[in-house]
Amino acid sequence: MADLFLALIHYPVVNRNGQVVTSAITSLDIHDLARSARTYGVRAFFIVHPIPEQREFAKSVIDHWRFDFGRAFDSRRREALELVRIVATLDDACAAAQETAGVRPLIVHTSARTERGESFASMRARLETPGAPPALLMLGTGFGMTPEMAARADILLEAIAGPTDYNHLSVRAAGAIILDRLRGR
Amino acid sequence: MADLFLALIHYPVVNRNGQVVTSAITSLDIHDLARSARTYGVRAFFIVHPIPEQREFAKSVIDHWRFDFGRAFDSRRREALELVRIVATLDDACAAAQETAGVRPLIVHTSARTERGESFASMRARLETPGAPPALLMLGTGFGMTPEMAARADILLEAIAGPTDYNHLSVRAAGAIILDRLRGR
Repeated sequence: MADLFLALIHYPVVNRNGQVVTSAITSLDIHDLARSARTYGVRAFFIVHPIPEQREFAKSVIDHWRFDFGRAFDSRRREALELVRIVATLDDACAAAQETAGVRPLIVHTSARTERGESFASMRARLETPGAPPALLMLGTGFGMTPEMAARADILLEAIAGPTDYNHLSVRAAGAIILDRLRGR
Repeated sequence: MADLFLALIHYPVVNRNGQVVTSAITSLDIHDLARSARTYGVRAFFIVHPIPEQREFAKSVIDHWRFDFGRAFDSRRREALELVRIVATLDDACAAAQETAGVRPLIVHTSARTERGESFASMRARLETPGAPPALLMLGTGFGMTPEMAARADILLEAIAGPTDYNHLSVRAAGAIILDRLRGR
């Protein structure tokens, strides 16, 4: 099974009005997605943020659970947070993933607005192919990544769909569902 | 397709030490699970809490988005929150579901610790059978529901599994994955 990486992108993303913004790091995104990543065997979960103070904040959230109070309080939470790495850019995440996996990962874009993307079944089969390259899944915060992030990707994954036309899942829910579709038993 | 209902249970649940507790309502649980419920065509999402002050809190979270600032700010969030109903007990949730669906729902228990439950494939087929009764999925907060809640259920759904032995998803992630497995396209 190919190595899988997850990257939570805070810039460049759009807000509800379509303006390009840098979103704030949310501690619950870190916790929820780390636990989902750990469940589905993700090798590393990158928090990608260009602002040093925001990266420091993310580090403090993680250190609290890794070294302080949280370590004794909830070891399963710590175990998940050990997957988290905090980086400034997507390039940094790719370089770190390459160092871990030995090969540059394919960059996989996810969005609720993708109209003709690679199917989950096809992406899952790709990851299960012996000798397949690693993959790095990008998840957008805010109201999703800007088109330039899609342009940087090797693969556009299809949007998650249920039986309705509502497509406004939280990034925590969408990340969990994507990992389950690609790696669930 | 049978009507599907979701119920988030705050009592009786256990804490990390296995003690029976009443957990607090979390506004993010309401938001995330309402959006997932809306995506997957759930008919109503019940917040079940025995303490009146906690039910008032949940109501204030929802009213903020339904009637005040939030209504203009984010109509998609409002649309999801319209599914939420706040009740004191599981019996109240079942009665309300029965009133909506016309038939008493099957109560479906979910847990990360279920060892031999009904498979997701079987449960999905059951919901897709013409004339099937509605189903009400119980999600536990804290470290999960007490055994008495499993005893009240008509069906124990199998635990979510990935390729690892880690089984500590957030209730927000687990709820999203369960709905996707039962109703995703």
